[in-house]
Amino acid sequence: MNTFSSRVFRRLVFLAAGLMAISGRGAEPAAAAPQAELVAPGVWRIRFGQPEQFTPTYFRSAAMDVAGLQALAPNAPLPLDLAKVTFQATARGCSLLLPMDNQERLYGFGLNTKIFDASNPGRRMVIEPTDAPENDLGQSHAPVPFYVSTRGYGVFVDTARFASFYTGNLAPAQDVVETDAGKISTSTAELYRAREPRMKTMVVEVPAAKGVEVYVFAGPAMLDAVQRYNLFAGGGALPPLWGLGVHYRGYAPYGAADSLGLAAKFRADHIPCDVWGVEPGWQTRTYPCTFVWDTNKFPDPDAFLKQMREMGYRMNFWEHAFTHSSSPIHDALKPWSGNYRVWGGLVPDFATPEARKIFLKQNGAVLFSRGVEGVKLDECDYQPESATPWSFPVVSSFPSGLDGEQMHSLFGLLYQQTMLTPYRDQGVRTWSLVRNSHALASPLPFVVYSDSYDHRCYVRGLCNAGFSGLLWTPEVRDANSVEDFYRRVETVIFSPNAVINAWFLKNPPWYQVNTDKNKRDEFMPERDAVTAGIRDLLQLRMSFIPYLYTAFNEYRTTGKPPIRALVLDWPGDAKVRPIDDQFMFGDSVMVAPMFTGQKKRAVYLPAGDWYDFWTHAKLVGGRTIEATNGVQQIPLFVKGGTLLPLAAPVEYIKDDTGFNLTVYLVGDQPADFTLYEDDGVSSAYASGKQNTVRLHADGEKHSAERTGGYQGAERFKITGWQPF
Amino acid sequence: MNTFSSRVFRRLVFLAAGLMAISGRGAEPAAAAPQAELVAPGVWRIRFGQPEQFTPTYFRSAAMDVAGLQALAPNAPLPLDLAKVTFQATARGCSLLLPMDNQERLYGFGLNTKIFDASNPGRRMVIEPTDAPENDLGQSHAPVPFYVSTRGYGVFVDTARFASFYTGNLAPAQDVVETDAGKISTSTAELYRAREPRMKTMVVEVPAAKGVEVYVFAGPAMLDAVQRYNLFAGGGALPPLWGLGVHYRGYAPYGAADSLGLAAKFRADHIPCDVWGVEPGWQTRTYPCTFVWDTNKFPDPDAFLKQMREMGYRMNFWEHAFTHSSSPIHDALKPWSGNYRVWGGLVPDFATPEARKIFLKQNGAVLFSRGVEGVKLDECDYQPESATPWSFPVVSSFPSGLDGEQMHSLFGLLYQQTMLTPYRDQGVRTWSLVRNSHALASPLPFVVYSDSYDHRCYVRGLCNAGFSGLLWTPEVRDANSVEDFYRRVETVIFSPNAVINAWFLKNPPWYQVNTDKNKRDEFMPERDAVTAGIRDLLQLRMSFIPYLYTAFNEYRTTGKPPIRALVLDWPGDAKVRPIDDQFMFGDSVMVAPMFTGQKKRAVYLPAGDWYDFWTHAKLVGGRTIEATNGVQQIPLFVKGGTLLPLAAPVEYIKDDTGFNLTVYLVGDQPADFTLYEDDGVSSAYASGKQNTVRLHADGEKHSAERTGGYQGAERFKITGWQPF
Repeated sequence: MNTFSSRVFRRLVFLAAGLMAISGRGAEPAAAAPQAELVAPGVWRIRFGQPEQFTPTYFRSAAMDVAGLQALAPNAPLPLDLAKVTFQATARGCSLLLPMDNQERLYGFGLNTKIFDASNPGRRMVIEPTDAPENDLGQSHAPVPFYVSTRGYGVFVDTARFASFYTGNLAPAQDVVETDAGKISTSTAELYRAREPRMKTMVVEVPAAKGVEVYVFAGPAMLDAVQRYNLFAGGGALPPLWGLGVHYRGYAPYGAADSLGLAAKFRADHIPCDVWGVEPGWQTRTYPCTFVWDTNKFPDPDAFLKQMREMGYRMNFWEHAFTHSSSPIHDALKPWSGNYRVWGGLVPDFATPEARKIFLKQNGAVLFSRGVEGVKLDECDYQPESATPWSFPVVSSFPSGLDGEQMHSLFGLLYQQTMLTPYRDQGVRTWSLVRNSHALASPLPFVVYSDSYDHRCYVRGLCNAGFSGLLWTPEVRDANSVEDFYRRVETVIFSPNAVINAWFLKNPPWYQVNTDKNKRDEFMPERDAVTAGIRDLLQLRMSFIPYLYTAFNEYRTTGKPPIRALVLDWPGDAKVRPIDDQFMFGDSVMVAPMFTGQKKRAVYLPAGDWYDFWTHAKLVGGRTIEATNGVQQIPLFVKGGTLLPLAAPVEYIKDDTGFNLTVYLVGDQPADFTLYEDDGVSSAYASGKQNTVRLHADGEKHSAERTGGYQGAERFKITGWQPF
Repeated sequence: MNTFSSRVFRRLVFLAAGLMAISGRGAEPAAAAPQAELVAPGVWRIRFGQPEQFTPTYFRSAAMDVAGLQALAPNAPLPLDLAKVTFQATARGCSLLLPMDNQERLYGFGLNTKIFDASNPGRRMVIEPTDAPENDLGQSHAPVPFYVSTRGYGVFVDTARFASFYTGNLAPAQDVVETDAGKISTSTAELYRAREPRMKTMVVEVPAAKGVEVYVFAGPAMLDAVQRYNLFAGGGALPPLWGLGVHYRGYAPYGAADSLGLAAKFRADHIPCDVWGVEPGWQTRTYPCTFVWDTNKFPDPDAFLKQMREMGYRMNFWEHAFTHSSSPIHDALKPWSGNYRVWGGLVPDFATPEARKIFLKQNGAVLFSRGVEGVKLDECDYQPESATPWSFPVVSSFPSGLDGEQMHSLFGLLYQQTMLTPYRDQGVRTWSLVRNSHALASPLPFVVYSDSYDHRCYVRGLCNAGFSGLLWTPEVRDANSVEDFYRRVETVIFSPNAVINAWFLKNPPWYQVNTDKNKRDEFMPERDAVTAGIRDLLQLRMSFIPYLYTAFNEYRTTGKPPIRALVLDWPGDAKVRPIDDQFMFGDSVMVAPMFTGQKKRAVYLPAGDWYDFWTHAKLVGGRTIEATNGVQQIPLFVKGGTLLPLAAPVEYIKDDTGFNLTVYLVGDQPADFTLYEDDGVSSAYASGKQNTVRLHADGEKHSAERTGGYQGAERFKITGWQPF
């Protein structure tokens, strides 16, 4: 595999040489009628006009996983009638009309938290990064110009522009559409009601570009199209085992002594915690950043890190990219930065090797050389709806040739790629945080988070992330009430990164959920009970780690999202199409979070047998039931016919941690389940240093068959096989 | 003067041949350093890059008023240091950096209703049309790429693109800006607080365009720059005298009989009313429109119009441009329409002579041939912040070559120009309504209105309209209470068009202010008292007509806005800079509206003597006073040293109406006041058929000196000269 640094500045040459004739972008004349070029089984590229250079594929994070694509249902036909596709270049950019079936439903477009089915009603989805994702314009922390249809195909428009997708609400002039019933309206609500066109059309507008490349992904099912998109991106990211544990982020002003004290208290209190996050307080100046240790607060960084590690913590450090004038790299970075400052700081042009090198030299000196396991890359999104946006303007230009619009789309991706380099170079994994991402992000081991905080939207984000190759953490900070706090923790433990982010909380939120009281050390009377309740929930997370690690290994090799909306698993069931408050967690567990104030909620069980996780009661699917779960008992349902391995919870995962597993036999004739075993921290798995452990049960006969090239100690000990 | 139809499709050749060398746009090579070309005294053009063809000047409504510009303070120096101006073309458009003084304040950018001083704080102003003007992004019904500075200059960026103006909030990278005080924040409010850059820069971004022409207008005062901008546009629009009367719009479903009945009732009740507005009910189909009379509701349109005229009403008809498939012009219009429909209707390309001709043929047959005095052009704005915009998308293209973005900026202007043609051809004036406008609109006799309804915002709109060559009516519809209703009527009578818009009210709002009750014929117990109170307020409006007609005549010849924010009249008084709830109505009267719920309000009186309009009490200026006016007595203040002519109110203005005037001598040594006398309806004033009547008072000696070429009956009879 190519290394990142040599790949970024040239066009990726697709490796599927046996499948297609490779031709460079500039070599072909513009074709009159669109032609689809097969780039891998089930993946086609269609070129329109003169595409721009700087697109997500140009800056892709990994090579396409050709082997993975070949393994996935070969010989799928092109799922698009090219004769019905039209393209137009205009002074302001270009546009594309794609045929739509009036019944089809579209999902994707990135990490939306307010919109789920983006075609109901037909609407404009704007692929624009924002720090205010709770909007209905399609803007999000990770806007992605990719969608997937219930008709079983996916479309990726390879652009870093703020493209708009009109999902069936525009009416081309050639069609006559009668909408008026002859009644004179006397209210604006009547006048401006949405009209559904007679025939639907998908219209994509790409500003500035004179052309665009579009990738089409075959089904036959929606999930196939999503998997192909993720494999085209390079496959899913594999976390280190510790990345699936609990991640706690301390109070921003904390120094070494404060962090060490609280970290020790967690161990004393048996609060599961794998990752300790250090917020801005570690730097001499922040907003913007210096990337220099504040030795007043951290007199001996090495000693601090050593003591944290001795307690079993992996370390994650906060930063953003905007570089303070007092940073030692400021002057060197200046020629490789954008032409506008943010908060007075330089904006590094991560599309240049020079900026990356200078930036990594300093970050390497202070963080990576010290073995820091992860980073939190903050403030890399934008504020398109703000009159006073604080980030760099779209009018910016960068030494690489990118303009501000392109850079805003790509900034999160490029920042992730830059900071991933030391880990890749060292052959170790990370499980980091980032606040902005975009297309083809599935290989990036970064989980997106937000400053927004609507719990209902956070759950919708979990459903949506799976359509677009993204990972999302509905992180927990403060809460309106203890109930709200429990409900939020119940959700975050079923996410890719169980983050408790106490950056503005002096004490753990289970001492006090209210921010102001927390800062004043005023603790809740029920503090001890809440601490115990939260400990239970975090232990529940820890028991799911081997199961979840399987889902991530399959994400890596097959592109199947570990957490996903029901519509991907039951594409033929029209009832799941609007469901954005239930999701699959791996292949066998369905999660239906409850929200504060709810005494009950409706849960739709798709066809088949289901089992209540808490009572083990069997439930017949194909219907809606009512869940009345109290706090600490989020509604969870296990699919019948599955093996569910659950671990005895550990408090944190050491490199040699072994898991004691109970394998539950859920329903009749459970299908086999595969566990993945490796060193848990390095990239050796990619070169075969990984075992599979195949769990099999046939009545009273059980087996666990281990195969593969990993030679380390056994990671999993089956301590029991139990009927559920 | 050229006629509209021959002017629209060719580049205007500036007539100031003696002042400059004229050169065509395509003839000059792009200059390395910007050069300013004098186009008229105090007006410079600077060309950057390769400007687009379709801009506001290309579609200008009138020729530049060179004589007016020559009359206005000649030999003003260029108010911009060209050495500090930089231009950059990028893939996504172009941008321009202009120097700013850290203390200067900027106003303008069109018909904003939420933003007043657009530079406090520095922000992004987006020149984008919207139907939701109560936003803080600069979008409005009439966005205008023009601003005026307290340093005494104006800048007009000649573009139909959705340009952004960054009013001092961006920090170019060459300046180091220290903003961090070394404190670690623990709240997002702290983190994201706005930072003021050390040195301010105006950044203008124009999407899609590879260049742009900028016009700079000299001072020395702000008002001079505004006047120059308006004269550059062709000078201010002159209303017919009846246009300054009261305009009532009937219930949308009304037929002929309903309208005639209510119109007769107004006369019986002595409710002043000059203009009767007919809403959608007159057409066979609306949303979209057919432009065909519904003969069920209006069996004999000519008879209806005749009867209305016999009662003294001038007629205004509602429509929008989107053309229904059952309209007789639909098929002919199709090749001259945009490629997307709105509500199923065609979008005429008013930039083509063909679309204008077809559209006017039908509108001429049904409206103009019948002598209809005005139109209301609805729905011609856009919904940039909506996920389901109902108007044509920016991705549209039009036969003229305009794209959807350009057309959205220009649609209101082109629609106004189209509908103005029959009036200009007939040599008569109109005073019409429109919901969207843009740059260089001062010669257009159209007043902008809105569906929005915040009274406070409506008043801010009155203040802002004067900066950008726009007219705005804070029209009154329903109300939350009788007090709210009175307060709104108090405001609308001090606007360019005193519109009561009852399109969704079956009965006049003075019978019932609540919409639902009004539709159910449930009248307020205080109906008679409110009718009398509203009659008084409308009569107050009628008494100001001769005074207001003077202000409009001066708007026409000098470009001075008849209604304007205080900062234009007192540029040296820093205290008026934020005042957006008081405004000048003509040269002598200051209006300070009160809002429902207010028992009192602060009113700032600039330096000098002032007189309370109601009590005649003398007030010393240079301070803030408290107004406690009850309903029906909006706070009004008359400047000392002025002559204020007020008319005995008439109920409506006939072509031969004579006004009985009392001239009030306000303060000591009042300055002369000029009345304008003409036929009130035709464009004969432009060829000298107009008199001035110069009012002069010197102690007990008074005179009214009439001069000019108008031969009609005396319009003004001075019935008394009275101390105030």
